[in-house]
Amino acid sequence: MSDTIAVLGGTGALGRALALRLARAGHLVVLGSRDAERARASAAELRETLSATGVDARVDGEANAGAASAGEIVLLATPWDECGASITALTGELAGRLVVSCINPLGFDAKGPHGIAVAEGSAAEQVAALLPASTVTAAFHHLSAPSVADLDNDLSGEDVLVCGDDAAARARVVQLAADVTGRPGVEVGALRQARVLEPFTAVIIAVNKRYRTRAGVLMTHVDPARPAPAPKAAAQAHA
Amino acid sequence: MSDTIAVLGGTGALGRALALRLARAGHLVVLGSRDAERARASAAELRETLSATGVDARVDGEANAGAASAGEIVLLATPWDECGASITALTGELAGRLVVSCINPLGFDAKGPHGIAVAEGSAAEQVAALLPASTVTAAFHHLSAPSVADLDNDLSGEDVLVCGDDAAARARVVQLAADVTGRPGVEVGALRQARVLEPFTAVIIAVNKRYRTRAGVLMTHVDPARPAPAPKAAAQAHA
Repeated sequence: MSDTIAVLGGTGALGRALALRLARAGHLVVLGSRDAERARASAAELRETLSATGVDARVDGEANAGAASAGEIVLLATPWDECGASITALTGELAGRLVVSCINPLGFDAKGPHGIAVAEGSAAEQVAALLPASTVTAAFHHLSAPSVADLDNDLSGEDVLVCGDDAAARARVVQLAADVTGRPGVEVGALRQARVLEPFTAVIIAVNKRYRTRAGVLMTHVDPARPAPAPKAAAQAHA
Repeated sequence: MSDTIAVLGGTGALGRALALRLARAGHLVVLGSRDAERARASAAELRETLSATGVDARVDGEANAGAASAGEIVLLATPWDECGASITALTGELAGRLVVSCINPLGFDAKGPHGIAVAEGSAAEQVAALLPASTVTAAFHHLSAPSVADLDNDLSGEDVLVCGDDAAARARVVQLAADVTGRPGVEVGALRQARVLEPFTAVIIAVNKRYRTRAGVLMTHVDPARPAPAPKAAAQAHA
């Protein structure tokens, strides 16, 4: 399945890395940036990287609004923004889109990395509140950008944890994760689980520092390709 | 290294299971319960289980206060208690002890499992606030009690994440984790990381439901036996 995927914050380390892998998987990827020229330059670099591996990839770059309009699926790989102005500015463009928040609100002090308190509970829930006409999920918090950017790196041993309130959207992001890592994402429930997924990145960063590594997370004893049947709407109503 | 380890909440599922494995590893384990008779009955059952596998284990049972006094290391495998009365009652007995909070403040509603907001940030930080004369760490949140209780079960493929503000205490709990799972625990930083570790259990429970499994967590690309050298106090002061 090939989709048009916009990556806002597409010139940042994680955004570029995800775009690279999604383009390699055959998707048309549109990088979004506040600076359209930077987005186009990054897109050209990614095309060149993939061309060197024999992949004729489709990667474009645009200003954020244009990228958001183009994408059927829109990844938010942007820095945490407490006031949410950059998201609010795109409410119209993102209407009807499947939005995937990869945002990690993190802080660092003498005790190490930590999650920042978010009024809405999590960055993903903030995004959902700002985008009532979009379907919002959250995923891709825990992959190390350099690990994703290195195409020789086998990521199929780590999990992408996916949350969201819409079952079909979660299932779509689970498949998108497979296009990045080679392994379907793992569904972890409602969007509010982002309250845990986002600051778990601070745990990973602390581990990276303590063990001098680029850690990821794997849920043991889970076959992500074999979820139990989703409960029916009627069954949910009685749950 | 053999220690006397008290397990408060030692008649609950996780407490019993941890006690079983720690006793098998050669520690003297004292189960604590509000009901001393129940604690003694559980201790007798654990001795019998281990005796059937040829292990002459040392497991006793006492009321919580007696168990707390006896333990050099005290595991809190008790249910979450917002007012903390059961902990406050043991302030004297727990003074000078290495306390390991395994407490998971969790709730369940129509959207699934979720972490409960804790005024102090986490149950572990609440415990630390109530026990100023104890050294408090947090660990063992993510192991599945039935998986731990089944001694045939190889747990060496999953991680015990350990946090705490005292480096020596963290290192001790890392080794204690190895006595439970066969794999040293992974240090994830300051005690406040319990704000993530505790509700991450809600993520695991959601995964268990979705994939009909007993999931655990593994940090990929980490060799828990090889942490980087801990920074020196002087280096920390300049960090």
